[in-house]
Amino acid sequence: MSYQAPIKDMQFVMNELADLNRIAALPGYEEASPELAQAVLEEAARFNQEVLAPLNVIGDQQPSTWKDGVVTTTPGFKEAFRQFSEAGWQGVLHPQEFGGQGLPKLVATPCTEMLNAANLSFALCPLLTDGAVEALLTAGTDAQRALYVPKLLSGEWTGTMNLTEPQAGSDLAMVRTRAEREGDGTYRIFGTKIFITFGEHDMAQNIVHLVLARTPDAPPGVKGISLFIVPKFNVDAEGKLGARNDVHCVSIEHKLGIKASPTAVLQFGDNGGATGYLVGEENRGLEYMFIMMNAARFAVGMQGVAVAERAYQHAVAYARDRLQSRPVDGSSRDAVTIIHHPDVKRMLMTMRALTEGARTLAYVAAAQADIGHHAADAAERKRAQAIYEFLVPIVKGWSTEMSLEVTSLGVQVHGGMGFIEETGAAQYYRDARILPIYEGTTAIQANDLIGRKTLRDGGAVARTLCEMVEATENELRAAGGVAASVAERLAKGREALSIVVDYVVANTQDNANAVFAGSVPYLKLAGIVLGGWQMGRALLAAQKLRDQDPSFFDAKIGTARFFADHILTQAPGLAQSITEGADSALSLNDAQF
Amino acid sequence: MSYQAPIKDMQFVMNELADLNRIAALPGYEEASPELAQAVLEEAARFNQEVLAPLNVIGDQQPSTWKDGVVTTTPGFKEAFRQFSEAGWQGVLHPQEFGGQGLPKLVATPCTEMLNAANLSFALCPLLTDGAVEALLTAGTDAQRALYVPKLLSGEWTGTMNLTEPQAGSDLAMVRTRAEREGDGTYRIFGTKIFITFGEHDMAQNIVHLVLARTPDAPPGVKGISLFIVPKFNVDAEGKLGARNDVHCVSIEHKLGIKASPTAVLQFGDNGGATGYLVGEENRGLEYMFIMMNAARFAVGMQGVAVAERAYQHAVAYARDRLQSRPVDGSSRDAVTIIHHPDVKRMLMTMRALTEGARTLAYVAAAQADIGHHAADAAERKRAQAIYEFLVPIVKGWSTEMSLEVTSLGVQVHGGMGFIEETGAAQYYRDARILPIYEGTTAIQANDLIGRKTLRDGGAVARTLCEMVEATENELRAAGGVAASVAERLAKGREALSIVVDYVVANTQDNANAVFAGSVPYLKLAGIVLGGWQMGRALLAAQKLRDQDPSFFDAKIGTARFFADHILTQAPGLAQSITEGADSALSLNDAQF
Repeated sequence: MSYQAPIKDMQFVMNELADLNRIAALPGYEEASPELAQAVLEEAARFNQEVLAPLNVIGDQQPSTWKDGVVTTTPGFKEAFRQFSEAGWQGVLHPQEFGGQGLPKLVATPCTEMLNAANLSFALCPLLTDGAVEALLTAGTDAQRALYVPKLLSGEWTGTMNLTEPQAGSDLAMVRTRAEREGDGTYRIFGTKIFITFGEHDMAQNIVHLVLARTPDAPPGVKGISLFIVPKFNVDAEGKLGARNDVHCVSIEHKLGIKASPTAVLQFGDNGGATGYLVGEENRGLEYMFIMMNAARFAVGMQGVAVAERAYQHAVAYARDRLQSRPVDGSSRDAVTIIHHPDVKRMLMTMRALTEGARTLAYVAAAQADIGHHAADAAERKRAQAIYEFLVPIVKGWSTEMSLEVTSLGVQVHGGMGFIEETGAAQYYRDARILPIYEGTTAIQANDLIGRKTLRDGGAVARTLCEMVEATENELRAAGGVAASVAERLAKGREALSIVVDYVVANTQDNANAVFAGSVPYLKLAGIVLGGWQMGRALLAAQKLRDQDPSFFDAKIGTARFFADHILTQAPGLAQSITEGADSALSLNDAQF
Repeated sequence: MSYQAPIKDMQFVMNELADLNRIAALPGYEEASPELAQAVLEEAARFNQEVLAPLNVIGDQQPSTWKDGVVTTTPGFKEAFRQFSEAGWQGVLHPQEFGGQGLPKLVATPCTEMLNAANLSFALCPLLTDGAVEALLTAGTDAQRALYVPKLLSGEWTGTMNLTEPQAGSDLAMVRTRAEREGDGTYRIFGTKIFITFGEHDMAQNIVHLVLARTPDAPPGVKGISLFIVPKFNVDAEGKLGARNDVHCVSIEHKLGIKASPTAVLQFGDNGGATGYLVGEENRGLEYMFIMMNAARFAVGMQGVAVAERAYQHAVAYARDRLQSRPVDGSSRDAVTIIHHPDVKRMLMTMRALTEGARTLAYVAAAQADIGHHAADAAERKRAQAIYEFLVPIVKGWSTEMSLEVTSLGVQVHGGMGFIEETGAAQYYRDARILPIYEGTTAIQANDLIGRKTLRDGGAVARTLCEMVEATENELRAAGGVAASVAERLAKGREALSIVVDYVVANTQDNANAVFAGSVPYLKLAGIVLGGWQMGRALLAAQKLRDQDPSFFDAKIGTARFFADHILTQAPGLAQSITEGADSALSLNDAQF
């Protein structure tokens, strides 16, 4: 099944909901007109559809392999990565002075979606490189930036994030990898890192590992972690490759999905220590790593949208083609294609509404990031940045959790054929399962949503968002008819979210366990209500534009209504579980399970 | 990870909720005392834990293979099947006159659960044999019963169900396999059947295929389907094996899960026609097939409970062992095992509550089946049978759908390790995915729930069940405290279910599409409310018994409360989606997707 980038849907969200015109008016983004954005999207669509999408199944059937420390990627990946790099796709978001295109995140985000929809495994390599670039741009020295960033953007080298160790997953306080100071200002790195995505591969000349480690006199816990550059091959000041560094891939994992993406175990320092270069200051590594993590978390949220979109397209194609059973309303004596059966429609609508809801929320968040970086007014920047940061754990957590439901429904639409690997639907179900886990599990996102994003400002941003939702409710109500019925559902959802925000703010200090027992449901509730808000805005925009293309905009209106009727209606029950369900959630002790 | 049969939990449900004493007092079941049941369960636990559970991972890693028409099952399966058969496990439920043990379904059901929890792939072979036995007992001639049933119960032969063809999945009206009459009363069978579970294997001497086919002059559609016995090897009147019949396995499928279970494509009649023996009368095949299907549907529902239980045990073991992160309440400066983290508790409680809710409902349904067959009073039999039949699509549909959520949470509890195949959690996630598909997808179950089970009697059984729920609400309210709070949630759920039953009864004739757009949500709502009802009854029983074992019964009470707080609270939103959400679910036409 081929992938067709949903450019028209993307442009609708970019132009009507995320206000690309406003983003293009920001200082530094003057070139990012809707026309340029369209050209970029069309070229991205062409490349991803033609080059990367066909490699997706091949990657599942012929995963990357490991032999004697060398990883050979799926046939076709190396050449595709060369084309990806030469076309400049790695640099879409990054500064022009280092060879990037310097486009807004709002324009880069649909490109990220397409890349991941075409090939989730392949896309992880650029995703990690983006994170490394962000960290170096923020915390690296001028010399480090000049040395590494252009090579990373050109695709000559790629980047990795080395956080996890066997005993240190979500809990980075337990990191043990050592960094010993040398006389020349460099460090010797010793330790084992696991789950390193594209930690070893054959698509680039060099790999720039960004590694968390502890200096000998570092304080314990997360305040004693430093960040180091550890190149696979040592490089001189001009970027010429030297000797192999003492970092080696000892194995790759046998995984449920994203099989083409090599997940490496890396051993540092078995032969005297890997040469490492400090990034920024000692003991501030976690802070820098969060720069990478935040970019990566948003991108993983887009992976959720992407795999959901692809699973949806696959299911629609099958449902249009598969002839089975007469209509339940007796309108035909012959079997019809299953897309006409009400339950198949309900499944496809659920897939579609969740995917569109998560997409709209993510694109709107991306626009806030652009405003947060580029608006002329400092107060406007601050406000937008705060909204973006509030939304990041929701984009990551909700989009990836919903992708499990969507890819599962994708299998179900196919019936028995869905369980047969050759059909292709099962791959999305397997691939998606990592998304709510890596770059911070949904629980970690939910902790972030409660701790840094809700409590730190006493719920201020959360309440601002509720007010914005309410403004949309008023617009919907004023529009009357279908829009007014959506307003009622949205109001119920927003009230539920407000109650939970108040509950979180009021109770976390005195009863942290109770609040955190509802953390993931709070994140889900926020995703549903804020996604539903954007779908409400989409409905209003579609009603205005309807006459230009009735079939397209009626589908937008129908999908927004479906979201309200079938997804927003979950909100009050969730709020009840959160505010009244902690006692029972915590009622069993360890031995009672 | 080893499997431990939850005998204590099973006995609690059998004795306190499904009233084993009453079942043991039914004519014909006098031997089925709680003491005998306990002995049977303990022996089943031993066998399944020791023999079949260790083969589960092996089956995933070394699936059954096909070569030149011959299927070789996973190493160890053949010997395990010999032991299974010799111990008499195939016959638990079946009549003593054919070599079975003739135990109540209520006692057989926990055995089925254990078998499937130990090894879902292996269990499919006995599951299909059970279906064949049921069909032959009901529709076969005396000679057919005498010839086939003892061999099927002894494990010398196994059975299959041959329904599906490439163009005929859920829609049996499209079956094309031909049956041509021979002069000697036999038939020649020609056609292709797909998705035939254990359609070819090496564990038994012969395979008894039960095959749907059409005679040349049969009417079109489902009224022209007949059922035939097609043995792999022809047999004489004494059961001695003769020549190979003209049925051949041309391939087996490459599947997402249950890989040890061979899923065969069978070709009938490539060399002149396979010899087939009519079961019952011509053109009544669908009716007979439903006998097999109904037994199999209940059993597949138990597969959902079983894989959920095993995934839960796996996750609990990991959560007790994995040390990561300090408690959110600041109660320790050191990392704790993750079972102490509130979100992990919430996930484990969700897994546990769904599994227990589905188990209680299924066991209670099994007891109704026993009453339906064995009660002395005809009215009592009729009432119980009607309740059982109402519950079958719910046990099948809801238990299997919830198993997707439970096995997905099982992966999530493991974090990154959950995505690594060697951990084992991913296998349950993959295996479970077939359960809402085979033996009738969830939509097919939901159609059955609406059509045969709700509309045919004008909602009478559904309303009877709602009254029974209400009686439990009153008991809970009278008990006060925690029980009273559960009563309120249950009442909200039951009201939601009542509204939907009325909606279905009132609207299906005039607006079938709208009602069927809510069919699966109706099934889910019924599962939640009726499961919640049983959990409410469990709470009352646990409160009475608490002093005998406070830790165990407090956990039952906590789990029942969790079900009410976190699962029953979904009911009102579901009812709203069903009764008000059809317009939006049906709002897009084929081209708009």
